[in-house]
Amino acid sequence: MLPEKVRDYLNANRDRHLSELCEFLRIPSIANVHGEPDGCLQAAEWLVERLERIGLSAAIEPTGGRPIVFAEASPNADAPTVLIYGHYDVQPPDPLDKWHTPPFEPSVRDGAVFARGANDDKGQLYTHIMALEAWQNAAGGPPVNVKMLLEGEEEQSSPNLEPYVAANAGRLSADAAVISDSEFFAPDLPCLVYGLRGIVYAEITFTGPAGDLHSGTHGGAVTNPANALAQVLAAMHDEAGRVTLPGFYEDVVETDDAEQRLWSALPFDEAGYARSLGVDAPSGGEAGRDVLQRRWSRPTLDINGIVSGYIEPGAKTIIPARASAKVSTRLAPDQQPQKVVDGFRRFLTDNTPAGIRWDLTVHSTARPVLLSRRSPALEAASAALEEAFGRRPAMIRMGGSVPVTELIQRILGIDAAMMGYGLPDDNIHAPNERFRLRQFYDGAVASAAVLGNIHKQQSSQ
Amino acid sequence: MLPEKVRDYLNANRDRHLSELCEFLRIPSIANVHGEPDGCLQAAEWLVERLERIGLSAAIEPTGGRPIVFAEASPNADAPTVLIYGHYDVQPPDPLDKWHTPPFEPSVRDGAVFARGANDDKGQLYTHIMALEAWQNAAGGPPVNVKMLLEGEEEQSSPNLEPYVAANAGRLSADAAVISDSEFFAPDLPCLVYGLRGIVYAEITFTGPAGDLHSGTHGGAVTNPANALAQVLAAMHDEAGRVTLPGFYEDVVETDDAEQRLWSALPFDEAGYARSLGVDAPSGGEAGRDVLQRRWSRPTLDINGIVSGYIEPGAKTIIPARASAKVSTRLAPDQQPQKVVDGFRRFLTDNTPAGIRWDLTVHSTARPVLLSRRSPALEAASAALEEAFGRRPAMIRMGGSVPVTELIQRILGIDAAMMGYGLPDDNIHAPNERFRLRQFYDGAVASAAVLGNIHKQQSSQ
Repeated sequence: MLPEKVRDYLNANRDRHLSELCEFLRIPSIANVHGEPDGCLQAAEWLVERLERIGLSAAIEPTGGRPIVFAEASPNADAPTVLIYGHYDVQPPDPLDKWHTPPFEPSVRDGAVFARGANDDKGQLYTHIMALEAWQNAAGGPPVNVKMLLEGEEEQSSPNLEPYVAANAGRLSADAAVISDSEFFAPDLPCLVYGLRGIVYAEITFTGPAGDLHSGTHGGAVTNPANALAQVLAAMHDEAGRVTLPGFYEDVVETDDAEQRLWSALPFDEAGYARSLGVDAPSGGEAGRDVLQRRWSRPTLDINGIVSGYIEPGAKTIIPARASAKVSTRLAPDQQPQKVVDGFRRFLTDNTPAGIRWDLTVHSTARPVLLSRRSPALEAASAALEEAFGRRPAMIRMGGSVPVTELIQRILGIDAAMMGYGLPDDNIHAPNERFRLRQFYDGAVASAAVLGNIHKQQSSQ
Repeated sequence: MLPEKVRDYLNANRDRHLSELCEFLRIPSIANVHGEPDGCLQAAEWLVERLERIGLSAAIEPTGGRPIVFAEASPNADAPTVLIYGHYDVQPPDPLDKWHTPPFEPSVRDGAVFARGANDDKGQLYTHIMALEAWQNAAGGPPVNVKMLLEGEEEQSSPNLEPYVAANAGRLSADAAVISDSEFFAPDLPCLVYGLRGIVYAEITFTGPAGDLHSGTHGGAVTNPANALAQVLAAMHDEAGRVTLPGFYEDVVETDDAEQRLWSALPFDEAGYARSLGVDAPSGGEAGRDVLQRRWSRPTLDINGIVSGYIEPGAKTIIPARASAKVSTRLAPDQQPQKVVDGFRRFLTDNTPAGIRWDLTVHSTARPVLLSRRSPALEAASAALEEAFGRRPAMIRMGGSVPVTELIQRILGIDAAMMGYGLPDDNIHAPNERFRLRQFYDGAVASAAVLGNIHKQQSSQ
């Protein structure tokens, strides 16, 4: 149980904490806008200042890209050490015209705070700062030693995190790790995530004629890069919705019966899920697989963006000189990103029609990850979630990628507890992202409780 | 033969005519930019003023879209009447960054004038005004009665021209028609065009989920509109490069042997053609058809533009909520646009996957046209081209659409002479459009000579 005084402190400081979060949300820490000044450094500086105020030593540490904020507090050499991860970068806010209030002007209404990053991940990250502050000010310090690893490139799949973790493995060593960058399974059902898909995010460019051509004068005599790209992208799936890149399924591990039973018992409302997305039914993906398998344990290939030729209103009769598409595959355990990249290249070599030059740029990769479904950290997190939200969490996988989880597992040897506080309809990566205030406040209770629970586990050993 | 004094007049006034053309080119008469003030009305007013100065009565006449300039001069009731067609609207200038000088600031260099519309069609249209001025000022008036039909929506496939021509068939009646909106077959080989492809220009929109979705969380559970659009567009061609819309080839007429011999005799340099487009070889279109067939007498389907999802630099992991493509088919004689539109709708009904709602908007249509290869007007035009350029023109078809030609044939009963002065590498519909000064000046000689030739034909009957 979380000490009463820590919980009381959190309750008493809700308004201030919310207004501090809003301050954090106002910083436009968009990671992927190239060549423009951005708010990432500003967000990192804000975090350092905030962490030092509650007794951690904190510093901005350079990487090949956006910096990492590393902070630590070691109140007790005998206590276990907990590594807390979060990210301060956010998704780009476009399409801007779909936001009801501006993405970087937080708006509190309908029991939620609306802003880009409110949920993913500034809001969830901030619950850990609130928890540490509560332990510090109400109980004289956290019950464990704490290290915080706060990165600025998660939304780009963390291209510079692996070298950082590898180079700082000693400094980052810990007994347990906690990550809050995920969501509840359902509005009233917290969960712990033990599996994540990986990703290969690539951009394909097809180049044909030297310039745009008149489609009347030359149509039929020149391979149209947009036609060709549509053809090649379409060929990346077969009739059964399976991806046709060479070797794609070779390393995919099937779920076992125990896991399948776990998922079958989940209160997954397929019709409600479809409704929440605005579709009639969950109709994509591989034939013969249920929706949770398709989202969690099966790989996918999605076009994230495509552009070619004339895209303004009206008509222009051209054969475009080039066409390009951003294409990402979500990888199931144990697919290897490099093998998928190789598969892309082989597929393009084999399928690109005459008259087209292709180019493939890999924006980012991350390996899939599977954690143990029973570890001490998961037990501590499970009890903390139950205490904060009144219900024992479900054990689930997640379709997205949180690259740090795999790095923490592979390089530091720790299976992290992924205890997220978002709700499924919080519009992350979309307009009108939000974080419910209840999830925010109770999330801080869980973030505080997990530290006490990890401390207790060691004491009882 | 063109009277010496008319030719001398044209020679003596070259500089002034060029600077007048530049004035015309400075007017940004882009037809397809919706909701913004444009230069079309300004261009129409400029033409009226210019035509009245050389003795024609001219007026701006409303249509459902951009106005038509109609002008006439009837110096001799017994003379034949010639209808001259041109268009004052131009293609959009984008991509702007590819222009060496701004598209609406004409630049005279390397023996050519560079500007949007320099060739298509303001420059060619202006040769007829120069010709009429020369007849007027050097010979007391043109040798024939003249009617001019100058439209402002050709680059949108003339959506309002048919009702105008139908409603004004009496006023537009003539003995012959001349159109200069095409190009030489080769730099030194003028030509007359007796066949044109038609067009159906449509826009397909696929809508899936209510908003963009996280491709990790939902990938595999939702039909991705961009994936689906690529798949459906790819299915519109078979392996042999044939279009698969239902009924698409039913009305296509094959070229006959005589025509095929005519084309085989043309000095068509396939390698040079490919080089001029910046490709290794002319590699598109239907298997088993030669390049001229593929460009002139076979139908095509080209994506002119496609857009979906995230298209800025970098990566965004979304399943886009919608995807759209502008797709145009070029039609061979005797394909019917309405039947092709119906084919599109049937194809989309049959092939759009579950989870996607489709919409089809038709931007424009035009019927294909085949003219007689021997008519008095063609004879007059042939002699005029030979006199101006020193070589008898080839008889060819063209892959583009000039909708007015079909209307003049079908509604007014006249087979027009399509005598164009552009060169194949003039970059029409592309950045750095140009019109060679030699083609401009000699084109004006041809435009003057054809009127004399038509007059002589009647006198000699």
